[in-house]
Amino acid sequence: MACTVAVDAMGGDRAPSEVVLGSVQAARAHPDDLRLLLVGKPDCLEAELRAVEWKGANVEIVPAHEVIGMGDSPIVALRKKKGSSIEIAMNLVRDGRADAVISAGNTGACVAAGTIRLGLLPEVRRAGIAVIFTPGPQPVVAIDVGANINAKPEQLLQYGIMASLYARKIIGVESPRVGLLNIGEEVEKGTSLAKATNALFTESALNYAGNIEGVDIFRGGCDVAVCEGFLGNVVLKVSEGLAECLLRLFKEGAERVVRELAASQEDGVSEQAVAKVQQALTGALAGLLGKVDYSEFGGAPLLGVNGVVIIAHGRSDAKAIANAIHVSQRMAEADLNRHITEEIRAFSGQKEAS
Amino acid sequence: MACTVAVDAMGGDRAPSEVVLGSVQAARAHPDDLRLLLVGKPDCLEAELRAVEWKGANVEIVPAHEVIGMGDSPIVALRKKKGSSIEIAMNLVRDGRADAVISAGNTGACVAAGTIRLGLLPEVRRAGIAVIFTPGPQPVVAIDVGANINAKPEQLLQYGIMASLYARKIIGVESPRVGLLNIGEEVEKGTSLAKATNALFTESALNYAGNIEGVDIFRGGCDVAVCEGFLGNVVLKVSEGLAECLLRLFKEGAERVVRELAASQEDGVSEQAVAKVQQALTGALAGLLGKVDYSEFGGAPLLGVNGVVIIAHGRSDAKAIANAIHVSQRMAEADLNRHITEEIRAFSGQKEAS
Repeated sequence: MACTVAVDAMGGDRAPSEVVLGSVQAARAHPDDLRLLLVGKPDCLEAELRAVEWKGANVEIVPAHEVIGMGDSPIVALRKKKGSSIEIAMNLVRDGRADAVISAGNTGACVAAGTIRLGLLPEVRRAGIAVIFTPGPQPVVAIDVGANINAKPEQLLQYGIMASLYARKIIGVESPRVGLLNIGEEVEKGTSLAKATNALFTESALNYAGNIEGVDIFRGGCDVAVCEGFLGNVVLKVSEGLAECLLRLFKEGAERVVRELAASQEDGVSEQAVAKVQQALTGALAGLLGKVDYSEFGGAPLLGVNGVVIIAHGRSDAKAIANAIHVSQRMAEADLNRHITEEIRAFSGQKEAS
Repeated sequence: MACTVAVDAMGGDRAPSEVVLGSVQAARAHPDDLRLLLVGKPDCLEAELRAVEWKGANVEIVPAHEVIGMGDSPIVALRKKKGSSIEIAMNLVRDGRADAVISAGNTGACVAAGTIRLGLLPEVRRAGIAVIFTPGPQPVVAIDVGANINAKPEQLLQYGIMASLYARKIIGVESPRVGLLNIGEEVEKGTSLAKATNALFTESALNYAGNIEGVDIFRGGCDVAVCEGFLGNVVLKVSEGLAECLLRLFKEGAERVVRELAASQEDGVSEQAVAKVQQALTGALAGLLGKVDYSEFGGAPLLGVNGVVIIAHGRSDAKAIANAIHVSQRMAEADLNRHITEEIRAFSGQKEAS
């Protein structure tokens, strides 16, 4: 079965060129089962396609004449810029012309357009953005990182259910352990929201690991970390900043090591040895970068909307776009939303029966 | 002028041995201007002192027969365990027998004992814990990381004032830029607490840098980052977990480089060269570790209480304890609390006049 993915080709810091390039790469990698609809200004996208070797790639342009900028206020922009690329892309899924959407554009506009155009899945209260933290011993799905900054306990429980299914169906974790991000393990810890949410999770049929602390995300303490969107967004950006900072320090350290070695060649360190060290350190750095690189995640799924939506990082390059497209294809093929609907229903039934 | 510091010798994962060792090291480093009161079980502390070379170090034991454990509920423990080491240490400052307290024990008990025994400075609404983030281009004082999880805008403004003075008087930043940790720069971003606090900071006479995002802490975007205690505590522990995780990955990468080099000696890489690379990488790793090592910070000041209180990390070793003692000495000598009192008064005056 061929999967059709609508790509918001105008969204992102490096759109449209990197988005178009990544789309063509993704389409080439799946010639038999992937079709892409590039949504955006036709002239502009045609020019971008001409610039890359796109012949034979299964891509098609769908016109959209407006673009919502990264700095635009989502609600205002959606109202004023009718027919924007993100809106048209969502409509393609709503109308059954595409199986999934990906966008590296304005996150708030993606959430709003997804929620308004696609609607929520039955009984789902709020959509949530999930991201995958990869530096620890295994990947951890963190939800919500910014879709909903006024979350209620019931909404957080639904986030746990949805992210748990994502971990099972897309990442392949058999029985994901769900933790609630808090300031201590004890039940009396945290804000009133955290306490009420912990009680709700404890009563639920989820594989609940209890309250977790920030360190546990990186120590294998859980497979899913639930938090409200304000906290999740700050945590995501703090992690991004710290990782960026430590990698720069590591790179500087490695360069210093190579310089010192090169300067001490009279002490029996050959030029060949210096080249070898340089190569090995470059390899080690690339491996590390891969552990924290957002472009490897394949973007952040917006869970809870009635359609597959992936929000890619604003700075996405072609590789990140291609990975986001592949993840959206996997989500569509795994029929994740059907599983979410069934599970959310089962949990509501349980609640009513109890 | 000699400074007297009361040390909660029973507090911390590695108490009393590392605490006693660190205290003796600190006292030896400042033979003329530092006197330490080790608070705890006399038999136990005498044995610890005998085990280290303490002759000539200006330390004295002050008996306390109870110990509040790391897992104890702070309020319950303070009520049931009368005369605990942390309580006696606070009393020494209250009674003018010591100029500062340091403890690596139960954080909640430190905050509660500090607030109850010492009281708050005039007009200060709530005490806040500040920590110093060091990986970025310059240190950043983050406040509050867990003393107060139901903060109000006025309390957050006072945190900004107090941490700003800490940055000026203790770290030496001339005019600290204060940022409010939020999910975007725009004034309409964030929770209702964030919006109200941003408005209050904007009107204030602080050098306010506006809303900041998590990445800014590590990119030189501010000198002080203000947030409420739940958020700050999670951010602190996420940073700790991520740094620990990335450093382990760096270390493994460096070891792999050395192993690969050693295995390829037939290719013209001498044993001497391998040894040199190993040494250089170990040095680079140590430098990196120093950038994220909590033991270098010298602990977290509890700002707003009527006395100098430093909360050291629960895992503190001797070096961390010695650094915490030195920072508490600097805070006492700089008369930080007098400056805080004056500044808080000036800000209230301003508000009343306006």
